[in-house]
Amino acid sequence: MHEKPVRTALREFVAERDWGKFHTPENLAKSISIEAGELLECFQWDDSGLGSAEDELADVLTYCLLLADRLGLDPDEIVLQKLEKTRVKYPAADARGRSTKYDRL
Amino acid sequence: MHEKPVRTALREFVAERDWGKFHTPENLAKSISIEAGELLECFQWDDSGLGSAEDELADVLTYCLLLADRLGLDPDEIVLQKLEKTRVKYPAADARGRSTKYDRL
Amino acid sequence: MHEKPVRTALREFVAERDWGKFHTPENLAKSISIEAGELLECFQWDDSGLGSAEDELADVLTYCLLLADRLGLDPDEIVLQKLEKTRVKYPAADARGRSTKYDRL
Amino acid sequence: MHEKPVRTALREFVAERDWGKFHTPENLAKSISIEAGELLECFQWDDSGLGSAEDELADVLTYCLLLADRLGLDPDEIVLQKLEKTRVKYPAADARGRSTKYDRL
Repeated sequence: MHEKPVRTALREFVAERDWGKFHTPENLAKSISIEAGELLECFQWDDSGLGSAEDELADVLTYCLLLADRLGLDPDEIVLQKLEKTRVKYPAADARGRSTKYDRL
Repeated sequence: MHEKPVRTALREFVAERDWGKFHTPENLAKSISIEAGELLECFQWDDSGLGSAEDELADVLTYCLLLADRLGLDPDEIVLQKLEKTRVKYPAADARGRSTKYDRL
Repeated sequence: MHEKPVRTALREFVAERDWGKFHTPENLAKSISIEAGELLECFQWDDSGLGSAEDELADVLTYCLLLADRLGLDPDEIVLQKLEKTRVKYPAADARGRSTKYDRL
Repeated sequence: MHEKPVRTALREFVAERDWGKFHTPENLAKSISIEAGELLECFQWDDSGLGSAEDELADVLTYCLLLADRLGLDPDEIVLQKLEKTRVKYPAADARGRSTKYDRL
């Protein structure tokens, strides 16, 4: 996701509206939680809201990208780095087919 | 974020652990909310948890990418498409420097 | 929940620790979201975390009561008042047995 | 909050609509997270949404009470019991005036 087109488009969108001043890390973290709640609403009682999930997921992703940019992080890179940590916490041999948390594996 | 390396790495990670069966859209949406809460915890009382934000943001992003993949969506594409809708809802001229919601602009 | 014992116990607990200064409405709203995420984690992949739900629900409730107290609201009263609004939005005859949102009833 | 009026009113409201079948612990936990996100939205960029906080807080509380009832728990009691645990984790002498997490006190 460090590709130029998306990051550039987001930066231009924010700059045109002078919204950078609202985008503190804390405000972006709140926004991610708010949008995650709206995404979850698609699945509140059943899967009947699945059709709206694309737009809601886009909103969560957008705020994640804005927060990454604000913190000077490359989204792809932090996902890959975290994946390496998770590989260690959840060795394939122990975790295979189980949703058990790592501290109980 | 439709770049091959991250998507491929995530798919391999999941396949090695046979975790695909847990990754229903609903379970992934719940996971995004849960991780968004952990990210928010970095900013619960002040900014003192900022140092953990990178890892928590990576967790939110990871579940977002897994959900996108599960729904057959390209993360970059849906962010750009949503951005076009938001451009219309928040014209730069009206929204400039204001955090007002679109229905009150 | 406007009964004295709980409200008094919470107030004493907060005063003894001089934590009132952290309990802005915004910080309490963040805390409610964070704890709601921990409650949801009991149900992330299945119901296997049900045993922890009591403690996590208590945490969400605690922050809700602190926010109500901070805003000068009586928890029971606002629940009952909101229930009256919801009765109007979801007439029993239309809503019976359906989880449809009010604007599509 | 174990007072009869609120619990009775909620039970009647649910029964009249035959909504008990939707109120699994998992669905109620999701609903609490969703409504917590709406409450947080009152404080997304600043405090300008404070006027809506009462209704949103009522929604979070309502789902918390429904979940407590569903799990056979008394809301007041679990809050008081959790408070006793928190007293031990955060001794007033150590925690006074600090928002530090218990494992770093």
